[in-house]
Amino acid sequence: MKLCVVDVDGVAHGAVVRDGRVLAIPGATGDDPLLALLAEGVTVAEVARRLGDAPTDLGDVADAALLTPLRRPSKIIAVGLNYREHSAEFGQAVPERPILFMKYPSSVTGPGAEITVPDGLSTQVDFEVELTVVVGRACGPASPGGLDDIFGYTIANDVTARDIQEVEAQWSRSKSFDGFCPLGPVLTTADEVGDPQTLDISLRLNDEVMQQGNTAEMVFSVEYLMRWITATSTLEPGDLILTGTPSGVGFKRTPPVYLGDGDEMAAAIGGLGVLRNTMRFGALASAGVR
Amino acid sequence: MKLCVVDVDGVAHGAVVRDGRVLAIPGATGDDPLLALLAEGVTVAEVARRLGDAPTDLGDVADAALLTPLRRPSKIIAVGLNYREHSAEFGQAVPERPILFMKYPSSVTGPGAEITVPDGLSTQVDFEVELTVVVGRACGPASPGGLDDIFGYTIANDVTARDIQEVEAQWSRSKSFDGFCPLGPVLTTADEVGDPQTLDISLRLNDEVMQQGNTAEMVFSVEYLMRWITATSTLEPGDLILTGTPSGVGFKRTPPVYLGDGDEMAAAIGGLGVLRNTMRFGALASAGVR
Repeated sequence: MKLCVVDVDGVAHGAVVRDGRVLAIPGATGDDPLLALLAEGVTVAEVARRLGDAPTDLGDVADAALLTPLRRPSKIIAVGLNYREHSAEFGQAVPERPILFMKYPSSVTGPGAEITVPDGLSTQVDFEVELTVVVGRACGPASPGGLDDIFGYTIANDVTARDIQEVEAQWSRSKSFDGFCPLGPVLTTADEVGDPQTLDISLRLNDEVMQQGNTAEMVFSVEYLMRWITATSTLEPGDLILTGTPSGVGFKRTPPVYLGDGDEMAAAIGGLGVLRNTMRFGALASAGVR
Repeated sequence: MKLCVVDVDGVAHGAVVRDGRVLAIPGATGDDPLLALLAEGVTVAEVARRLGDAPTDLGDVADAALLTPLRRPSKIIAVGLNYREHSAEFGQAVPERPILFMKYPSSVTGPGAEITVPDGLSTQVDFEVELTVVVGRACGPASPGGLDDIFGYTIANDVTARDIQEVEAQWSRSKSFDGFCPLGPVLTTADEVGDPQTLDISLRLNDEVMQQGNTAEMVFSVEYLMRWITATSTLEPGDLILTGTPSGVGFKRTPPVYLGDGDEMAAAIGGLGVLRNTMRFGALASAGVR
């Protein structure tokens, strides 16, 4: 099943995408409708039951104003250097243990969104396509997590200001400008994805392939990451794990490729769709104005 | 004004502490009652108005079952090496720019809580008392933050597994075990605190003073941190900034002092109260059981 959040006249609706149509999940409206469903502990079967036999059709998915499937997950954990060739392009050995860092939830944006970098804050912005785990139920030290605790998967683009990452050893800030965590376009349930280590993953910049790999190349598998993280800390419904990016980032190319105004990114993962975003560099409309 | 969250028969109530009594804020119950008030944008005056002339008295604060003032802030940003002598004890130069990292919201616990480290996960757990900013209204790149955007302050203990911090360059995991972010005991509003750079700050371990300083010694002031963080990223109501710890942490003592089972920490900041927590090391009650 594919879930999405769609804007209908300014109201966010949780919905299911089926046969190209967007079908409203009854009662699933509000700030963060899919996160609310996850917090309730709904299962795929329960979503199907709520949808019923004659769901409200919100239109063709091609015309839908899709929003991020999750707006404010409680935490966004990301994994650094989790593909062998990406470690190599960074001149790093393959890590012996997962490198975990965090992105601010306030950096989340949706499919189709423009990502605006205020003038002068970074001139070396880069892309990173990542398979993203959406946690379905609480798991932690008392009951460590595994694949069964995953509700589904989506795509993230772990946008990064390399010039800041180079001078700040802690990575969160360089990866958490507003808009630096686009998610989507949909949330695909785990039963539909099956084995998460078999998915083609790629990123195109202005239609040119920049990153291309397969999730089989991960150093630490999704299952390992779930167990590793929950050894010390509780994962909660809706929490995200960005599982790392394959090689081909702009920063390590010769010459380096950095994002410019109007650049279009298309992050794709097999079975999960394509997440498209456009970069903007410039003054913010309301800069300096309270 | 001092706000708190108190457990009354299993229900969390937002309340005001006045003259030693806990006075219920009408309607402020639920999962995270003060966070909900902040999200609504309430002011100190509005809280006073809601309290009214004859508030419900929930009892003596000395007998109250205080919970964390905020349970799941959207983000917890912390600042490394932000006191000169603490940089020195780490053998580091005073940082030229703020060192920002994050703690998982799932690491939050409350005043009086025991912090249990599962067997074998860390043998070098350390304390760090920190003045903690509670953001009152959204501020970000389009309207950078300042002291006016702060609702109030509380105390955090930035508990850290030094053995993990030593081998993991990204600090979030070593600082985000469940329970590693005790907060409280109360939330003191900014008007009552006044200048945040004038507060005595200390931590006692089993009644022995380990850390002692004043927030005047910060490398980057609270106001600077608000501006720095919001240059790139939006702060949202209830977001926390842990502003760094003074010297005296256990890890850098000769010989090093690490927390042991039953150790009692008392983190104190002038005007904000004392945050007490006890360490536990051992098997989790439900370890391995789903």
